[in-house]
Amino acid sequence: MSKLTRFSVAPLATMTRRLADVASGRAAPDLVIRDARVLSTYSERILTDREIWVAGGRIAAVKPAGTHKGWAKAFYDAKGGLVGPGLVDPHIHIESSMVTACAYAEAALLNGTTTIFCDSHEIGNVMDVAGVEAMLEDAREAPLSIFLTVPSTVPATSAELETAGGDLTADKIAALFDKWPEAVALGEKMDFVPVTMGDERSHAILAAALERGRPVSGHVYGREFVAAYAASGVTDTHEAIDREIADDMLEAGIWLFLRGGPPTTPWHSLPQAIKTITELGASPKRVAVCTDDRDADDLMAFGLDWVVREAVKAGMKPETAWSMGSLHGATRFGRDGEIGGMGGGRRADLVLMTDDLEPVSTWYGGELVVDNKKITPLLDAALSDRYRYPEAAYHTVKLPKALKLTPDLPAAPGILHAIRTELPGIVLGHERIEIQPANDWQTLFDRHGLCFVTVVERHGKSAGNVAHGVLSNFALKQGAVASSVGHDSHNIIIAGTNEADMQLALDTIAATQGGVCVVANGEVRAKVALPIAGLLSDKRVTEVAEESKVLKKAWEEAGCTIPYMGFNLIPLSVIPEIRITDKGLVLVPEMAIQTLFEAA
Amino acid sequence: MSKLTRFSVAPLATMTRRLADVASGRAAPDLVIRDARVLSTYSERILTDREIWVAGGRIAAVKPAGTHKGWAKAFYDAKGGLVGPGLVDPHIHIESSMVTACAYAEAALLNGTTTIFCDSHEIGNVMDVAGVEAMLEDAREAPLSIFLTVPSTVPATSAELETAGGDLTADKIAALFDKWPEAVALGEKMDFVPVTMGDERSHAILAAALERGRPVSGHVYGREFVAAYAASGVTDTHEAIDREIADDMLEAGIWLFLRGGPPTTPWHSLPQAIKTITELGASPKRVAVCTDDRDADDLMAFGLDWVVREAVKAGMKPETAWSMGSLHGATRFGRDGEIGGMGGGRRADLVLMTDDLEPVSTWYGGELVVDNKKITPLLDAALSDRYRYPEAAYHTVKLPKALKLTPDLPAAPGILHAIRTELPGIVLGHERIEIQPANDWQTLFDRHGLCFVTVVERHGKSAGNVAHGVLSNFALKQGAVASSVGHDSHNIIIAGTNEADMQLALDTIAATQGGVCVVANGEVRAKVALPIAGLLSDKRVTEVAEESKVLKKAWEEAGCTIPYMGFNLIPLSVIPEIRITDKGLVLVPEMAIQTLFEAA
Repeated sequence: MSKLTRFSVAPLATMTRRLADVASGRAAPDLVIRDARVLSTYSERILTDREIWVAGGRIAAVKPAGTHKGWAKAFYDAKGGLVGPGLVDPHIHIESSMVTACAYAEAALLNGTTTIFCDSHEIGNVMDVAGVEAMLEDAREAPLSIFLTVPSTVPATSAELETAGGDLTADKIAALFDKWPEAVALGEKMDFVPVTMGDERSHAILAAALERGRPVSGHVYGREFVAAYAASGVTDTHEAIDREIADDMLEAGIWLFLRGGPPTTPWHSLPQAIKTITELGASPKRVAVCTDDRDADDLMAFGLDWVVREAVKAGMKPETAWSMGSLHGATRFGRDGEIGGMGGGRRADLVLMTDDLEPVSTWYGGELVVDNKKITPLLDAALSDRYRYPEAAYHTVKLPKALKLTPDLPAAPGILHAIRTELPGIVLGHERIEIQPANDWQTLFDRHGLCFVTVVERHGKSAGNVAHGVLSNFALKQGAVASSVGHDSHNIIIAGTNEADMQLALDTIAATQGGVCVVANGEVRAKVALPIAGLLSDKRVTEVAEESKVLKKAWEEAGCTIPYMGFNLIPLSVIPEIRITDKGLVLVPEMAIQTLFEAA
Repeated sequence: MSKLTRFSVAPLATMTRRLADVASGRAAPDLVIRDARVLSTYSERILTDREIWVAGGRIAAVKPAGTHKGWAKAFYDAKGGLVGPGLVDPHIHIESSMVTACAYAEAALLNGTTTIFCDSHEIGNVMDVAGVEAMLEDAREAPLSIFLTVPSTVPATSAELETAGGDLTADKIAALFDKWPEAVALGEKMDFVPVTMGDERSHAILAAALERGRPVSGHVYGREFVAAYAASGVTDTHEAIDREIADDMLEAGIWLFLRGGPPTTPWHSLPQAIKTITELGASPKRVAVCTDDRDADDLMAFGLDWVVREAVKAGMKPETAWSMGSLHGATRFGRDGEIGGMGGGRRADLVLMTDDLEPVSTWYGGELVVDNKKITPLLDAALSDRYRYPEAAYHTVKLPKALKLTPDLPAAPGILHAIRTELPGIVLGHERIEIQPANDWQTLFDRHGLCFVTVVERHGKSAGNVAHGVLSNFALKQGAVASSVGHDSHNIIIAGTNEADMQLALDTIAATQGGVCVVANGEVRAKVALPIAGLLSDKRVTEVAEESKVLKKAWEEAGCTIPYMGFNLIPLSVIPEIRITDKGLVLVPEMAIQTLFEAA
């Protein structure tokens, strides 16, 4: 067969006669999975003694065990194991995993995920429409079903507050919808305050989706915003952080995507939000689970299957939890006729799992891609032949020759406006530090527990914008850490104790046209090269996971209070209280620029 | 305002800013419904102490009672009553009610139904695409949200077995999808045996829908067909007659529409089929309720609200039952962002009801159309100004001048092949009666309990086809009964004891270009004129209900074993064992013509 992709399975419209023939016993299946129990996402029950007939990559029928007599191209003995539909992740950002869509597929399939709805707003922020379209091409070549929720909030704020590479207007978004059938929804509309305030650009973007019958995904904090946000046409969110806002959203007609993530991170809101079901008695029918963001390393250990198991831990029965991980997301996006369950005609995206819902083997479009937790040669071949991004994607770090990476030393007493980092790392505190002049920054840093933080514009759009700030409580012992993934404009963010190491970090990133690194004493301690748009590696996910693991260790050894995924959020100027972009310190929600130092 | 229709509420895409303003309290609502409890279809709970803010015909927000201060164009005091979303009927045939879409709206709104998905296959069988399009125009002028599931099986069989007015090919169906955005799905694919056998025409029609991303509605009897039917792409049915087939369908990925109807008719399959939930433990999330067919009279008393209450009687909790009557159907057709719940931005289609789920008042697009069980002047005005069908629709009964309405008297001993009628009236028995010659038919009738049944082709497509048969056990005392609604080709069917009364019945129907009547001794005892396509009255539903009531009484007095809706099925040559079309007696499932009399 040709390379395994979403298109390896022909459209149902072309296959109904063959499937009817197979289901009726007039033609042989390609594959019979024998002796299975079926986890039904439709009825939320386990059906015993079944066998599954597959033809042309689709489910022809689920029959009582032993019904099939005679020939089939292949048989698989499930030995009484539990088989369910492949998982469907209704909200993720591939870029967070620092790999391409083709590479992402490997981790997804190992975790039993066969469909994802991704929002490629990171590459949109760097490369505008060209970036989104390159990732769509990438997605089409992946051995995974990837649909797009079109990035809706690029840039996250405005040209006054940050310099982004992209500017996705309503017209550009409309054109993406019209050109790409897999663009099934509008991605998370992050600017919820402007949305609820009736901002014109924001609502023009909403209209571009709604007038095409495309649903709108959301992102909102604060119970006071929920009603106006829903009234604006938003019909899902993944940001419910507690029981009360989850309940409000559900009642406002919003599908809930409960986000699970490593419990040490703020991504893991599921245990609180799920209480709308377990404590307040809401039906789970409009509740799904999602991963949102995972670095390459966490992606392997904390996949959507893990989130499903967390839902079980939180009190859901396993059949319901798996349905929240598959059918519910499919239904939300109007694709339950194609995925999310084991009905006739559906894609044969299947997972053999333990009774604890641990995926063991995965079929994608009827092809065995993971067998007993190992990828098959067929999948390996598909993963070895990955999409190559256009040349322009490899040249997105555009820097002037020389840059001053540290601010002038204050020469008078006054107030230093510091960014206070603290776990979990989403909200950053605005610390006003009274200082007395010193001979050097190091003296000030020692006195107040500070280090430098600098953002360098890298899209070649400014005259070399550099903004200087200081981090409080970041606990960096020495050297510097840096990343080209600083959200959402993805300029380069560097934290450091001295300019030389900061320069080395910047040079390290520039040399690979993007990346994350840890340096100290003139040495690079760890790095992950991200040459595609300064966001993505071009390697396999297993390699990037290894690199990430090493990086995370070096990062921890450097002493940093917050992990690098949190560090990447320091420039995200839509979350309180103070952030830093290439334009300077930004106060949120005032949305105003703040100078670093004010003389008394 | 201009006349109330579905289009009185502007598309959400044009209204999000205003709704955000209202929901945020920056602009006044048009209507505040105060002091309500809300039946939430999203969570399946009752929310106490709420108020509903409506603007531009949409829900801006549901807020805690007492939140609104200040001005609004209108207030409504719900006095602590229960308010839920308008009901959504996912499968009905308007023609069964013998009224136009505009007239149907009245009964629907009185019963709390604000959206219907109709399959206009009857008018399609008479007038082909022109009939379907006329009803779509009719639907657009109705004060009700009417979507079309495009008739998929016209004619029901083939030109060898019956003469229909319509022939809806895959190409014509594709063109309907492309022209009419409200054509949201393919209508019930009734020829389930050909579908499961892989028939080419049937699958070309399925493909026309599937390749456009339109779901396919089904109609299937027999557990042995379910798998192949689902594999053919069918994703709902309303024909589950018992627990086992309901369960099979659900597991095959088919949405279940549980049909309720007058308990004396075979339409009332809900109490059996719902046991997949109440006895077998399936989740109700993919189960809706529907009405399918109602005559004008039953429509008033046995609306979808009644079916919802039957679901409660069968063991569902009220919040779940109402959700099965609203949100679930909306979700099945991908319209839950617009209807089926009281989320922000949805149409303000609302029902104030008693705690027993009896509708009291209805708002359609924010307008009060039923107030305390009476229609409002606004609705009355809309109902008085109904769509007028094109002139051709009033001329569909095309008969030759003279017809022989009774068969030749057998002159020898032999076998008479009779159609045995019996309640519930769906399946008709094939009775082989050994007869001896007699002087006249009356003698034979007296001996064997028979009467004439004759089908007259009325589309002007044949050289005056007339088919003769006899009914056994029909118990007609005298005279004749006749109808131009004989399914599915809608030729004229007449049962009678003598040719003179049969001729009078035919003349009565011809005089009004369609109808149903009861005659005896040269007198018309009761009739309902159906001048539009020979199927629909052009009167208000209340008038037609009155006429139907009188007709049903006369029908009963005439002694007929089966009611006239069952009588209309006698020509439906897809249900066992023997039927009569204009081509003669048809054996089912052999699909062969049978002569009336065979000499010994």
